[in-house]
Amino acid sequence: MSHSFKSNTPQSAFWKDELYYVLDQILLPDEIKYIECCTPADVAKTIIDMNLRGAPLIGAAASAALVLNYSGPDIKSFKEIYEMLLSTRPTAVNLRNVLDEAYKIYESCKGESRENLQIIFREFSDHVHLRDIQRNFIMGENGAKYLEKMFKGKKLRIITHCNAGALATCGYGTALGVIRSLKIRDLVDHVYIDETRPYLQGARLTAFEMICENIPHTVITDSTAAWIMKTENIDLVITGADRVAANGDLANKIGTYSLAINAAYHNIPYMSAMPLETFDLSIMSGSSIVIEKRDDKELLVFNGKRISHKDTKGLHLGFDVVPVSLIHALITENGILNNGISKEKITGLFNGK
Amino acid sequence: MSHSFKSNTPQSAFWKDELYYVLDQILLPDEIKYIECCTPADVAKTIIDMNLRGAPLIGAAASAALVLNYSGPDIKSFKEIYEMLLSTRPTAVNLRNVLDEAYKIYESCKGESRENLQIIFREFSDHVHLRDIQRNFIMGENGAKYLEKMFKGKKLRIITHCNAGALATCGYGTALGVIRSLKIRDLVDHVYIDETRPYLQGARLTAFEMICENIPHTVITDSTAAWIMKTENIDLVITGADRVAANGDLANKIGTYSLAINAAYHNIPYMSAMPLETFDLSIMSGSSIVIEKRDDKELLVFNGKRISHKDTKGLHLGFDVVPVSLIHALITENGILNNGISKEKITGLFNGK
Repeated sequence: MSHSFKSNTPQSAFWKDELYYVLDQILLPDEIKYIECCTPADVAKTIIDMNLRGAPLIGAAASAALVLNYSGPDIKSFKEIYEMLLSTRPTAVNLRNVLDEAYKIYESCKGESRENLQIIFREFSDHVHLRDIQRNFIMGENGAKYLEKMFKGKKLRIITHCNAGALATCGYGTALGVIRSLKIRDLVDHVYIDETRPYLQGARLTAFEMICENIPHTVITDSTAAWIMKTENIDLVITGADRVAANGDLANKIGTYSLAINAAYHNIPYMSAMPLETFDLSIMSGSSIVIEKRDDKELLVFNGKRISHKDTKGLHLGFDVVPVSLIHALITENGILNNGISKEKITGLFNGK
Repeated sequence: MSHSFKSNTPQSAFWKDELYYVLDQILLPDEIKYIECCTPADVAKTIIDMNLRGAPLIGAAASAALVLNYSGPDIKSFKEIYEMLLSTRPTAVNLRNVLDEAYKIYESCKGESRENLQIIFREFSDHVHLRDIQRNFIMGENGAKYLEKMFKGKKLRIITHCNAGALATCGYGTALGVIRSLKIRDLVDHVYIDETRPYLQGARLTAFEMICENIPHTVITDSTAAWIMKTENIDLVITGADRVAANGDLANKIGTYSLAINAAYHNIPYMSAMPLETFDLSIMSGSSIVIEKRDDKELLVFNGKRISHKDTKGLHLGFDVVPVSLIHALITENGILNNGISKEKITGLFNGK
């Protein structure tokens, strides 16, 4: 590995011998407990039930699921596993991109034995996991250097939403990777964390990562962010992303759109950090991104207690879309786009890869 | 009473014989249970603990607390009760305005017997309660007629935040009073309700009122509102207010500022409904409004379960301030201000009273 960093945040998922272990993020920060996955369906269940989440981590977990298909007695066709995994979550594109990469390998390995396919896909899965950490580290360094220059070495006051950290990836994180790299340079003054209803990824996961890395932070309700921008000298709003269209529009956790509008109103730059894997050049703009609609129980029931009247319905959308006009910069492992993000510049990032 | 309307929402508070009964709003919508108040301290406790909330209702409850001071064996000075009540919640001004009105009565009744003071303040309290309902009904009718004209009789798609309903007042509500008056005219298509973290007044109380009044509605997380504005053809955002400064800036439940910014971005009018009692002409702008900071446990603990790591701190502000530049209209019982809200116009409303 070309990077070196210490992290006290528990590993989000890992291989041990022939089994894949997934940190159960629903139990965080109370319990650090791993779910043992023996089959592709075990992995898919952790994605559907949101024990494991985060666009890059979902992609990596899919690579693990493919390996497990060849280690059990009940081998299914590649196509069947591909479809089963793809259907788990619709918005993040990393899942599809990793599966398409695996499909190319599968095509080139036709006729190989089960044992060999298991070895080949395990190598691929290890590669995907390691690569993700490496990318995040480079992305974090890119972002921190950019921000150090932009703010002339000022210690930054930051708002973030949801969890785009080590727990959303194989390690280091995307938006929180940038914050980790800022912290190494002593450039973090304070991080305000949107609690991120309804799943509370901010209050539960991002705050936990900040505790692990000893970064000063405060949890706020999502709707407090605008007021904090007005009253707390915020320099910067940064999030991850689940899919970026060819024009730079991006989908991210519901609430990101509101946050970007509020940032624009206060002349605070909104930026997002993501690997190139999160780009979907097949769609021209954010209006083509499928927004996942989830069960309204996840909104209206909390810890087993119903919040609203039994006859009240809720609308639980997993994501929203931020138009490129509200985005100050996209931070990737291949460089940073700002000053007018365009399809040409995005294509250029890929060519420079 | 000069109005007539039916409401299926339970009464927020009422006198029965010599005791004051407060609906325990913390138990809603699961249980309809009243807290019996025998002393001023009993009433103050329901305000502090948020069993009873809403700017107009807090003012009305204060009038009840004054009566109870003269019905018990342990009579305290008017001044002492005044201070005790005023210190319960700092942001809503209705409380102070009702207490100041009561003080004038007290001054004019010096030397009266305990029995007479009890009768005099009970008359005042009954008056405050009835007057609030009457004002709200007139305000609702004013708002509905204004909106009927503005939208040319279109059935409206509305977003609201927190609870500015019958439960926040002595009846009918402010913002929800306008929605009730629209409903009478069959002018409500749909109401999207921000759940309103951390107390969930939207998900618990406003949704419950919509159930009681049979108005189509959907609960969303607070940070979903901007996306709903973009995707669901919203006509209007309406809330109540806790204090309006002389220039028209207003304080309301935390999240209202974000909502008003999002509405402006989408060219959707943001308006607020409140009685003149909610105006504080002694302060020139919103920057002088004291924002209540509450215990962060109310944010980080839900149903006895802690959400964040034990070492994480939260910031729980009860309110934020919407600048007059983001307000399309103020709806009051004395008329509607729009098209450039100013100190002069606001003073004019009072003079027209």
